[in-house]
Amino acid sequence: MNEAIRNFFYPKTVMVVGASTKPGSIGYEFINTIKSCGYKGELLPINPKADEIHGIKCYHTIEEVDKTVDLAVVMVPKKFAEETIDTILARGIKSIVLITAGFKETGEEGAAVEERLLAKVKAAGARMVGPNCMGVIGADPSVSLNATFVAEPVYPGKVGFASQSGALAVTILNQTRITKFKFAHFISVGNKADINENDFLHFWQEDENIKTFAYYLESFINGTEFVKPFILGEVTKPCIVLKAGRTESGMKAASSHTGALGGSDRVVDAILNQAGVIRADDVQEMLDTVRGFENFPVPAGKNVAIVTNSGGPGILCVDACESHGLKLADLSEETRNKLKEIVHPEGSIENPVDLLPGGTAEAFAECCKILTEDPNVDAVINLFTEPVMVKGYPVLEEVNKIESDKPIVQIVYPLPETTPEYWEKSQYQRPLFFTNDAPAKIFENMLFHSKAQKRLTENREEYKRLFAIEGQCLLIS
Amino acid sequence: MNEAIRNFFYPKTVMVVGASTKPGSIGYEFINTIKSCGYKGELLPINPKADEIHGIKCYHTIEEVDKTVDLAVVMVPKKFAEETIDTILARGIKSIVLITAGFKETGEEGAAVEERLLAKVKAAGARMVGPNCMGVIGADPSVSLNATFVAEPVYPGKVGFASQSGALAVTILNQTRITKFKFAHFISVGNKADINENDFLHFWQEDENIKTFAYYLESFINGTEFVKPFILGEVTKPCIVLKAGRTESGMKAASSHTGALGGSDRVVDAILNQAGVIRADDVQEMLDTVRGFENFPVPAGKNVAIVTNSGGPGILCVDACESHGLKLADLSEETRNKLKEIVHPEGSIENPVDLLPGGTAEAFAECCKILTEDPNVDAVINLFTEPVMVKGYPVLEEVNKIESDKPIVQIVYPLPETTPEYWEKSQYQRPLFFTNDAPAKIFENMLFHSKAQKRLTENREEYKRLFAIEGQCLLIS
Repeated sequence: MNEAIRNFFYPKTVMVVGASTKPGSIGYEFINTIKSCGYKGELLPINPKADEIHGIKCYHTIEEVDKTVDLAVVMVPKKFAEETIDTILARGIKSIVLITAGFKETGEEGAAVEERLLAKVKAAGARMVGPNCMGVIGADPSVSLNATFVAEPVYPGKVGFASQSGALAVTILNQTRITKFKFAHFISVGNKADINENDFLHFWQEDENIKTFAYYLESFINGTEFVKPFILGEVTKPCIVLKAGRTESGMKAASSHTGALGGSDRVVDAILNQAGVIRADDVQEMLDTVRGFENFPVPAGKNVAIVTNSGGPGILCVDACESHGLKLADLSEETRNKLKEIVHPEGSIENPVDLLPGGTAEAFAECCKILTEDPNVDAVINLFTEPVMVKGYPVLEEVNKIESDKPIVQIVYPLPETTPEYWEKSQYQRPLFFTNDAPAKIFENMLFHSKAQKRLTENREEYKRLFAIEGQCLLIS
Repeated sequence: MNEAIRNFFYPKTVMVVGASTKPGSIGYEFINTIKSCGYKGELLPINPKADEIHGIKCYHTIEEVDKTVDLAVVMVPKKFAEETIDTILARGIKSIVLITAGFKETGEEGAAVEERLLAKVKAAGARMVGPNCMGVIGADPSVSLNATFVAEPVYPGKVGFASQSGALAVTILNQTRITKFKFAHFISVGNKADINENDFLHFWQEDENIKTFAYYLESFINGTEFVKPFILGEVTKPCIVLKAGRTESGMKAASSHTGALGGSDRVVDAILNQAGVIRADDVQEMLDTVRGFENFPVPAGKNVAIVTNSGGPGILCVDACESHGLKLADLSEETRNKLKEIVHPEGSIENPVDLLPGGTAEAFAECCKILTEDPNVDAVINLFTEPVMVKGYPVLEEVNKIESDKPIVQIVYPLPETTPEYWEKSQYQRPLFFTNDAPAKIFENMLFHSKAQKRLTENREEYKRLFAIEGQCLLIS
């Protein structure tokens, strides 16, 4: 595994160059976040004047630090950036995150400095994230590093995420206390001067902490290199891409486009499709899909069964399933007979199974279990609207308890109290979904991935041959 | 204005037949909700044994009540429903909500009872909502009636909403404490034995408390009668329909379909389109669109300007605008010169205007104001991601203060504290949106409505002539 990249997510020592004693400044907030989020390693702030920041010993110069430094995070003013990088490289540090902005994104002059920095980093055999980025999170419990200025708690998960937009990363992090979104790795790649999306592909494939990974991208630095490991079968974990610039105006607005896979958005679509890379339409679909892969088994087929206490939302959920290429499962007679024992006579034992508002936690769980045991069913959606007479939390948790190799995904319309109660008490901490179409999109994307993997595996030699000729990967349809 | 329908939303006296002293029962929860949500009129619970419920005087029989009763809400067990309705009608009460379930939706026997009830209601010149529904809300501050079993606070607004699904109504009400969704009228129509979607069209058009209205429907009771007032110009307020059963399986699941406009969903689409009725794709779009009409002026054209501190979300917002038929406005030179005074030199004075993370409340408000003054701009989106150095609430409220006849809609990615702070402090209480595409959908729907109104007005005589011949409304494309 690449050691320099590993150190972005698993550093034992982090140096923060440009740490500050001034509340509200980035240099202050970074130290605050790293400390308050419970970094397990050693934090080494650098500030020419301060002796301590947030109660942590502060070094006056980089040279003063007489320890091995795994990762240097730099947020000095732009005019000091180059000499700071020089000193860091001279010190032999191999992993650098350059937060400071004002380089390529501001025009020619900035681009020239950025190029010079890059040359120096490369010459030193180091790797650099940024410039113009918002930091990195390594959420493994042995690390617990939140080196960003968003002082939100970090929940360790099995997802890798890289964002070309710092702001988009902030929009997600700002809400983690509510969404309980869990990452293993979270990284804002900024201008992608050195480290770019392609650097994480093999790394995340190899890292056992990562089950699935996602990108927000405005441009591909080298589209051929991005899809190559998927085509060649070197990267097989599910990868979800949210690519901005779907429309002409959007593409224009994404001014940092390099054009590698640019030009036509339809070409991007076709190539990602070929490589088995999932393309999300929006942030919510991207987040829902990684949560799907992280938390649920992949369905073997497209037959979905729905259990609900809510007629209307149930029908909207059926519409969503069919719109996303799924099929409402035909329940077996055996299943229907078993359901009859549980479902109220005025409810429905047909799919969607309707327990009516009185459906209890036990009834929901029992129905879900019966449905997972039906060979005609590949996936179950439990859709629960909290009525006045049945408390929400027990329903969600009873359903969580079912052990099955088929996914059971829960849509919930709870009272405001129920979601915090769930996150506080649940032994399973599985994600909940709040729209009628979320599970349908997740299942569709899961099925797309497994189908693509099958196609790629079966035709691997042909793909390899074609790719070797000219990097062409659009020939087998 | 139809008095019997008026009494569903503005009753001075409400009788609850089937009130109960048993916590958790529907008859108890209804009284609890009506009381705790601050009903301004007189509440008259009926229970053969109790003398008071929740401290409110309880009558033992309907006959005992010696007052004018504007509205009777009935939740007695099914076997007592018919005699209860008989007594209510004999008492001369003209507006009835029958909550009790177990009629047409359970088969032939239930359908026969429902038909008998309907005949009696009609013979008495009364009107009935339900059976099999979850109640009614009349949120006008002079009424404050929440006659449902969802004991959530009611925020008075200018929106009418009727739902064919009680559960769907509950999903929306369960979250009002968080969304602060505001209704004027909210009604669950259940089996639509008597009162159906068509009964509210003229009523909501005439009621000055209503600015826009929406339906969740699984079937049209009479599609021709639904579109007729729109085609003839009798109903011109914006109407949004979320129609379940878009897909074949969805349509099958919506077992209560009457087939009036049924059959092909594409026909439903075409006819609603012809009549200028907005069709929403999902619950969120329906709610966002009514909030749009309720709170913002309709844009005169499709040219949108975006102000943001967040590059990535800004580009996704541009993509959303173009996908929904809008255009990124070409800003005038004058506008760009004015923006130059405010925007950081490393930001952008092109559309989307980028203030960078340091953009202050004053800068956001000033930019939005400048953009509304540009004749090339029809609508403004303010897209704010809360960074560590700029507090969210002041940004939102400064932008709210701008007076303009152009809409300024805000997308916000706040820290969890900011939204409650906003609802607590804001003088304006304008809705906030949390996805990059919400304003684009709202503007698209607003423009659809005004364009359709123009088309209908200009061709009115032709529409009237064609409609008179055979109710045909698909002839002018």
